Amino acid sequence: MHCALTLARAALRPRATGWARTMASRPLLVPPPEALRKPLAIPNRLLLGPGPANLAPRVQEAGGQPMIGHMHKEMYQIMDEIKQGIQYLFQTRNTLTLALSGSGHCALEAALFNLLEPGDSFLVGANGMWGQRAVEIGERIGARVHPMIKDPGGHYTLQEVEQGLVQHKPVLLFLTQGESSTGVLQPLDGYGELCHRYQCLLLVDSVASLAGAPIFMDQQDIDVVYSGAQKALNAPPGTSIISFSDRARKKIEGRRTKPFSFYMDVQLLGNFWGCDDKPRMYHHTVPVTSLYCLRESLALLVEEGLENSWRKHREVTAYLYGRLQALGLQLFVKDPTLRLPTVTTVAVPAGYDWRDITQYLMDHYDMEIMGGMGPSVGKVLRIGLLGYNATRENVDLLTEALREALQRCPHSKM
Amino acid sequence: MHCALTLARAALRPRATGWARTMASRPLLVPPPEALRKPLAIPNRLLLGPGPANLAPRVQEAGGQPMIGHMHKEMYQIMDEIKQGIQYLFQTRNTLTLALSGSGHCALEAALFNLLEPGDSFLVGANGMWGQRAVEIGERIGARVHPMIKDPGGHYTLQEVEQGLVQHKPVLLFLTQGESSTGVLQPLDGYGELCHRYQCLLLVDSVASLAGAPIFMDQQDIDVVYSGAQKALNAPPGTSIISFSDRARKKIEGRRTKPFSFYMDVQLLGNFWGCDDKPRMYHHTVPVTSLYCLRESLALLVEEGLENSWRKHREVTAYLYGRLQALGLQLFVKDPTLRLPTVTTVAVPAGYDWRDITQYLMDHYDMEIMGGMGPSVGKVLRIGLLGYNATRENVDLLTEALREALQRCPHSKM
Ligand SMILES: Cc1ncc(COP(=O)(O)O)c(C=O)c1O
Ligand SMILES: Cc1ncc(COP(=O)(O)O)c(C=O)c1O
Repeated sequence: MHCALTLARAALRPRATGWARTMASRPLLVPPPEALRKPLAIPNRLLLGPGPANLAPRVQEAGGQPMIGHMHKEMYQIMDEIKQGIQYLFQTRNTLTLALSGSGHCALEAALFNLLEPGDSFLVGANGMWGQRAVEIGERIGARVHPMIKDPGGHYTLQEVEQGLVQHKPVLLFLTQGESSTGVLQPLDGYGELCHRYQCLLLVDSVASLAGAPIFMDQQDIDVVYSGAQKALNAPPGTSIISFSDRARKKIEGRRTKPFSFYMDVQLLGNFWGCDDKPRMYHHTVPVTSLYCLRESLALLVEEGLENSWRKHREVTAYLYGRLQALGLQLFVKDPTLRLPTVTTVAVPAGYDWRDITQYLMDHYDMEIMGGMGPSVGKVLRIGLLGYNATRENVDLLTEALREALQRCPHSKM
Repeated sequence: MHCALTLARAALRPRATGWARTMASRPLLVPPPEALRKPLAIPNRLLLGPGPANLAPRVQEAGGQPMIGHMHKEMYQIMDEIKQGIQYLFQTRNTLTLALSGSGHCALEAALFNLLEPGDSFLVGANGMWGQRAVEIGERIGARVHPMIKDPGGHYTLQEVEQGLVQHKPVLLFLTQGESSTGVLQPLDGYGELCHRYQCLLLVDSVASLAGAPIFMDQQDIDVVYSGAQKALNAPPGTSIISFSDRARKKIEGRRTKPFSFYMDVQLLGNFWGCDDKPRMYHHTVPVTSLYCLRESLALLVEEGLENSWRKHREVTAYLYGRLQALGLQLFVKDPTLRLPTVTTVAVPAGYDWRDITQYLMDHYDMEIMGGMGPSVGKVLRIGLLGYNATRENVDLLTEALREALQRCPHSKM
């Protein structure tokens, strides 16, 4: 090893170190790509899948505003307003409430990175895609993960949860309020209280349900709620929102180890978001214009009123159910109280390939609906009526297009 | 434990489970925040700090475009074009090249999550803020981190690096090309080759230098390069870009453990970004409109030409040096070949409080320059001339404002 050093030094001596020399001495070997010389062309699409949804016009406009610094006082004010908007939407007074600089998965991962330590017991409601993801992330962190596996369409009763709590003594339970891969709305009343009786915290994914289905974080004793921007908030994907109860905060403050992630360390993020009483310190550069958009989407919900938004989703979705049934289609979730009022799942009609139907709508109407996902692939079509998109006009457009697709797409005679 | 279950069940029986009942039964206890009823008002600022920079007009416009799905064919095309743009900017043919859905820190963390496993030896050039962050993240991951600590203003010679390689036998070396907290440009010629001689991979942060200082990823044998969107690319913060050499890719493929992070798992991300030959699978919802912006910023650099962009930064910064020296200010980095052509550090003039100067420019000119950061706090003022902002007109505006500030701000007689 000693002689290698000397040899290497000799070999390296003649090299330039200044960048000016570097610049002069090297040719560009990778040419500029021709594809980037064409203008950007974005089609107009009606996005009636499970998200992203179309942007509300005011949100879209905000995305085209000029840049300011991530630590300017106007930015801190926008961030403070976002926190208040989240508190309203989640119905919580938690001070540890903020937006994350990443998508819904980033929020899920932030929750698990901060609440779990290696070896912790973690109970997961795994009745679709999102529980599977929570399992995957929990395992990476080194938690002892206990999935309560259900077929797509299932939900969890208090009794089932209690059995899991008794059996696995978890520190954390994950439930998805709006299981967008299956269309199931998980009830939330009583689960927080139940968890706390067993010294377990409750984490709820409300990405696909927020603003469509009621959630009362404080009254329902939920310890962590997160959601995304690109669903019923009609903001662009790229930010997500999260809030932690005092119980959750204490668990985080009492950790034996630092979270593996610095980017998602909620104590550091909380400081930058002004959630503690210390001066705000730079942590990372927050996505300034995406936060403009998020602020505007929350402002729109403040103007509309949360209860009106819930009512709107329920009514428009009920209207959708009628129109779908008139086409002879079957809703995938049988119990009306368990149907998600934002994302509706329809059983793939017998004799059809679901891909033909979604493709027909895209090709002929620039309209998106989606097939299943993860465990629900091939079983369902998924229709999202999210926020600004939740109108009877959109239901009419969609169901007319669907009627045509069912006539024109290849299908075996039944 | 068995009896607790029965008791709890009884206590919980009368609760509603359907969401309609929930909705009817609960009042909203958290009222809509008044602050969100005011319109969003964004000031026009000249951002001459180390980033974010002002958006190029075409990039800003892209941020106001309509939403499309993250898995639509147009989106895949935009992503493919972004990959090509990154390859051009980094001067690499690496196939594992993509944008991350997070800021510069997310890219650093992604690099470390994927390249390091617990117990790995990790050598870090810690001559400012970014090396400190690499140390912090490496430690969280459980690597054996060996910082080569230098005072702000320092850089690393090949000999110093070789000593570190010999002593610590690291699997990875971290260097910051553009140390934006100190204004130092780290030379890169020969470091990759040297690392490889010791079975070490080389990771370079080019967040603050890309498009301003030459980098030749392939020719310089660098294994991982990442950068941000909000510096000389003039795109909004929130995305970052990264590329992995075949050596780095092999190290990732040969891991004994999964990376702790799913959100930043480069193999999964690489699949979604079309970097392998498997069908693209949903991983998370990428930030659609931020990627429009990133695409446009790369397109602008293709139009301008990388060599022209390098030359522009060098020339405008040389012009700035002259103007600063005419004001009697001292450049913090003495060796001209080690000065970063994007972010210039100026020694805080004797007798002044740096805060007064930056505040004066903000208050009177809506113009941002910044003080030091981390180890350079109190030592320097930082001036960024980034991409679209790198013009003589901006230098003139800034230096006139600075002249006034130096007259008007309180200072002790020297
Ligand atoms: C219920 C639910 N959770 C989590 C996510 C993940 O969010 P993202 O794709 O923004 O990472 C989604 C996205 O569709 C979702 O519907
Ligand atoms: C050299 C360098 N590396 C990393 C970062 C971190 O990037 P971000 O703030 O986007 O997380 C910055 C940001 O200023 C930087 O200048």
